[in-house]
Amino acid sequence: MKLTIFSPAGVIMKAPPLRLACRRLRALGFEAELDADALARHQRFAGDDDIRLAAIHRVAEAAPSIALAARGGYGLTRLLDRIDWPLLARSVERGTRWVGYSDMTALQMGLLAHTKATSWAGPLAADDFGRADADGGVDEITRDVFCEAMQGELEAVGFRTDTGRDSLEARGTLWGGNLAVLCSLLGTPHFPRVRGGILFVEEVNEHPYRVERALLQLQQAGVLDAQKAVLIGAVSHWRPVPQDRGYTLKRALAAVQARTRVPLLAGLPFGHVPTKLCLPVGRRVDLVVQGREALLAWGHTH
Amino acid sequence: MKLTIFSPAGVIMKAPPLRLACRRLRALGFEAELDADALARHQRFAGDDDIRLAAIHRVAEAAPSIALAARGGYGLTRLLDRIDWPLLARSVERGTRWVGYSDMTALQMGLLAHTKATSWAGPLAADDFGRADADGGVDEITRDVFCEAMQGELEAVGFRTDTGRDSLEARGTLWGGNLAVLCSLLGTPHFPRVRGGILFVEEVNEHPYRVERALLQLQQAGVLDAQKAVLIGAVSHWRPVPQDRGYTLKRALAAVQARTRVPLLAGLPFGHVPTKLCLPVGRRVDLVVQGREALLAWGHTH
Repeated sequence: MKLTIFSPAGVIMKAPPLRLACRRLRALGFEAELDADALARHQRFAGDDDIRLAAIHRVAEAAPSIALAARGGYGLTRLLDRIDWPLLARSVERGTRWVGYSDMTALQMGLLAHTKATSWAGPLAADDFGRADADGGVDEITRDVFCEAMQGELEAVGFRTDTGRDSLEARGTLWGGNLAVLCSLLGTPHFPRVRGGILFVEEVNEHPYRVERALLQLQQAGVLDAQKAVLIGAVSHWRPVPQDRGYTLKRALAAVQARTRVPLLAGLPFGHVPTKLCLPVGRRVDLVVQGREALLAWGHTH
Repeated sequence: MKLTIFSPAGVIMKAPPLRLACRRLRALGFEAELDADALARHQRFAGDDDIRLAAIHRVAEAAPSIALAARGGYGLTRLLDRIDWPLLARSVERGTRWVGYSDMTALQMGLLAHTKATSWAGPLAADDFGRADADGGVDEITRDVFCEAMQGELEAVGFRTDTGRDSLEARGTLWGGNLAVLCSLLGTPHFPRVRGGILFVEEVNEHPYRVERALLQLQQAGVLDAQKAVLIGAVSHWRPVPQDRGYTLKRALAAVQARTRVPLLAGLPFGHVPTKLCLPVGRRVDLVVQGREALLAWGHTH
């Protein structure tokens, strides 16, 4: 399977982790290669806007089995109005799986909003497959789930949810990603209008009050109440401050839950943490929750 | 003039600065008093949601000449769906000036969106009038402009804009505030639909890429291009990181300017900095720019 690593957003400061990711992906059986401009540099970006836009379009035209983003950071927002969405949708029809998270949420949401084409929320080349052995190397679950998903063999993922509640069954379009990036699309043509869906979110470097504010924005915008469930992934790398005085992430989520009838389910293994699932964005999925066990299933993917 | 200090958002960790603000405002001739729950505490909030909501409504019913927020932080987002906007608008008709910035942007934007009533972007009691002498005490310009504005004698403010451009004249509704808070209202009923306006924004603790992302969201949502000018206040308390590689706030703003026909004018003395103007939010103003000199004028206020 051909796998192309491309850089749509932040600059790759050091090439070795990306080259390591490429070697590791080859060792896993993928025909992995770096896009010609994967290591381009322009200020904090992996090449200027024209270079990154051209890279996305070049990958879409080549339509490899897997288009794996090198890293996140910031950069896709600048390109959204210029991306040739039908071209990307045709690559998906030809079998390309677009994979990544964090800033890649903008591409995945835009693709869904403009074409309904599916993509994959999953690892990033540098952050996950380029992880130094000293830092634990590639997370085994992340790696195994990725391989299964890319081979079309992943039909469901299960996880333990923190939220004790009675059984729940729901079917709808799976969508979401990084919460800040998702909210940065609200009000724009790049925000998908999904009703009756299953929304998932993750966040990094944001205090719980900002997670709460973002979720309340989605609630006040009518997005939360239009979903059947909201899955909360990792909320990582934030620090409590003295004025929190007992305010925690749990209390932030409780404040949101008190304002919406849609169930919020914590515990999704996804986000800026080593262990992350692959999730088919834009696909209809079944969610089944029994006690603390949650299962997301979508049957065979081709 | 009766001036009530109330706490709609973050907890007041220490009472002395707020009491100092009260004394200083009395020395300036205001009949200043603390709202009964100005020092209430609940987690990171100045009292729980019911307490803060009741405080806002109590102040609106009493309709003092000035309703001055104690501080920002986070908290108004939780109350937006429950605030009695017509009650606040009636207080404005009776002569109340609602003053503050930062999180208060949410109240000011909600008031404008729901009732078109005007309010004042200006100082906060604790942050500005409660500033310790060791930190320079109350900023003289902030104090003098506030006193003039509250007495209805402020008819215009001038500032030096960083953006060298030819002359510009524009008339429209002045609106805006903290950029992150403003964007957190996009897509909700609390975001004002102002066309042909003059938008002002300020930001704190946010890297320029996030300022850029927020402004691009406003651009992609059609908000920027619908304005006649955008005034950029202080963007303070952010730190460059190694991967910026020459990306600066100036370049961020240039990237936004390249995508919109509305002129961005930097240099507005407003934001999380000691020296800040008072700005009449929701009022029709005239903007005149000649070279580096900018003047915002609105004539007499009552």
